[in-house]
Amino acid sequence: MERILPEDDMIRAVNVAFYRAFERGDWEAMRELWAVSVPVSCVHPGWQPAVGREAVLASWGAIFEGAMGIRFTLRNVQVFVAGEAAWVLQQEELESVQEGGERVKVVLLATNLFVRESGAWKMAHHHASPALGAALPPSDPRRLFH
Amino acid sequence: MERILPEDDMIRAVNVAFYRAFERGDWEAMRELWAVSVPVSCVHPGWQPAVGREAVLASWGAIFEGAMGIRFTLRNVQVFVAGEAAWVLQQEELESVQEGGERVKVVLLATNLFVRESGAWKMAHHHASPALGAALPPSDPRRLFH
Repeated sequence: MERILPEDDMIRAVNVAFYRAFERGDWEAMRELWAVSVPVSCVHPGWQPAVGREAVLASWGAIFEGAMGIRFTLRNVQVFVAGEAAWVLQQEELESVQEGGERVKVVLLATNLFVRESGAWKMAHHHASPALGAALPPSDPRRLFH
Repeated sequence: MERILPEDDMIRAVNVAFYRAFERGDWEAMRELWAVSVPVSCVHPGWQPAVGREAVLASWGAIFEGAMGIRFTLRNVQVFVAGEAAWVLQQEELESVQEGGERVKVVLLATNLFVRESGAWKMAHHHASPALGAALPPSDPRRLFH
């Protein structure tokens, strides 16, 4: 009998596939991961948003061209399902190799939005940003607002 | 004859209502804006994510307690609809008054995710982050990745 994964696990699996494609610089895999039936968008940290499938895929092409030896460790992965849409929140620990061979680690916070398309979960939006929270005391969360 | 707004306009209207509630520090209005039928989450810049309706609303309570004279100007507002879910991308120009009376402006980039709930669009997720892009040349977008 075929085992059917619970919804959350299917979304987690696609979410992990996204980071694996990112690590490998696998543009074809990345292209497969993104939705075709809805408009898509992508916010890389420090970039203006990429809007539309063509611009989003071009942004991954540009990243993959420059990226070297990227490895992700995901922490605090949380899945939210709302009917035909779902999103995943997580901390991305991103380790990369600089041109001189030095390893650098940055911690990002990412929202990945998925939509169900012909039964499969596909990416519709990615928003990654610096996880400043790591450096702020939890008791002083209002710093940016006053 | 009753005029029905196009879907995009309804989403824009709720999106603006969110920023108006934020400016007024109106916790009741904010509470009305957030979905009750799906799990919700919220990433304020520099905070760990707030997960669940109670934590999300508490985070707004904490912000409203400390915030003074916040004014938003939204730029590059873009609406994406995918069935019963929708998201809005925008630059938030946030002006606030410091304790000494000094006005400070920061530019953020925000994803607001909405779901349709009993015919109305409700917030399901908010992710705001510093708009580093404003300070980076468009020709050097890979800085964080190598």
